Amino acid sequence: MGVRSVKPIQRVVDNLESLPGVGPKTAQRLAYYLLRLPQERLDRFGNSLIRLKQETKICQHCFNIDEEDPCRICQDDSRDRNTICVVETPLDLLAIERGGRFKGLYHVLHGVVNPLAGIGPEDIFLPQLVKRLKEETVDELIVATNPSLEGEATAVLLANRVKELANGHAVKITRIGRGLPTGADLEYADDITLSQALEGRRQM
Amino acid sequence: MGVRSVKPIQRVVDNLESLPGVGPKTAQRLAYYLLRLPQERLDRFGNSLIRLKQETKICQHCFNIDEEDPCRICQDDSRDRNTICVVETPLDLLAIERGGRFKGLYHVLHGVVNPLAGIGPEDIFLPQLVKRLKEETVDELIVATNPSLEGEATAVLLANRVKELANGHAVKITRIGRGLPTGADLEYADDITLSQALEGRRQM
Repeated sequence: MGVRSVKPIQRVVDNLESLPGVGPKTAQRLAYYLLRLPQERLDRFGNSLIRLKQETKICQHCFNIDEEDPCRICQDDSRDRNTICVVETPLDLLAIERGGRFKGLYHVLHGVVNPLAGIGPEDIFLPQLVKRLKEETVDELIVATNPSLEGEATAVLLANRVKELANGHAVKITRIGRGLPTGADLEYADDITLSQALEGRRQM
Repeated sequence: MGVRSVKPIQRVVDNLESLPGVGPKTAQRLAYYLLRLPQERLDRFGNSLIRLKQETKICQHCFNIDEEDPCRICQDDSRDRNTICVVETPLDLLAIERGGRFKGLYHVLHGVVNPLAGIGPEDIFLPQLVKRLKEETVDELIVATNPSLEGEATAVLLANRVKELANGHAVKITRIGRGLPTGADLEYADDITLSQALEGRRQM
């Protein structure tokens, strides 16, 4: 690009550009936007980044991210400790919490099995889930990984591992429902979603 | 949205969301991406924001942003001090510098006149340009504001103000060329660009 911004600006540009989905043009535009903000706003922004990891912990029970370990969901005695919902990321956990219907505990895998990217079951928090199932009394395991290729593969792999355990207490393994989302248009639904909606039909 | 992220994460989400073009979903996705970076990277990012304004200055001569005041372009004796190129933003200056052809000085307006948004000629660094033209010997003023409605209006207003000056030394006022950009397709060019390309034709 030849002429670059001056160093203090270029540093911000480089940092912004390292974010996923932020290209060099956007990074530059954002840096010059930030230049027009009051120092106090920049201090707040900068410090929020520096403190992001310092003030968060990974719950050593469910691997959710929280300010406390164990996290406040695992600490909450009002929740059903016999049902575990397995999700890929803390954002998925948040999405389910937003629904407000699920009252069990979680297990955050922090990823999915993806052989092409070299991510095996030991690279995500799957062994920790197996360990947890051995130590705790769990009645139902709801596998809520994404309905993507990797999410499905992880769900199948997980189900197999759990079935292998089969020690005394039998765990019921379920997969979140598949079908048409609310507000969807049947006409525009893809074939797989439609056939899964038919398969997953329920009596009215 | 009901359930929000924990405070240290939400702070980062809020700061990211305050950036132009970053929505709540993107901000959240980016915050969780940042959580996976090493602390050292977050420190670097955070400090670059905190130091952004502290280590930059606005040149009191041309209003470019640099680490020094006067900026290094204004300090450079090899540049032609009798030609001033007027641009809207420091990014426009960088774009022209990247071309490497212009060897004069700049004047950064830091905006355009926009009556609908309540931005008058006194709200940008236009009076400072008029003052500069009174005090310095300038042969040519190249108006390189954007070919937008506001950019054109600012160019016309600026030209009128400079003509009014008409003190002893006559300043030649020029506007950057309009026409088809390199690589453009005549077939897809808009009417205004095409008619301006015809108007601005040059002998071969």
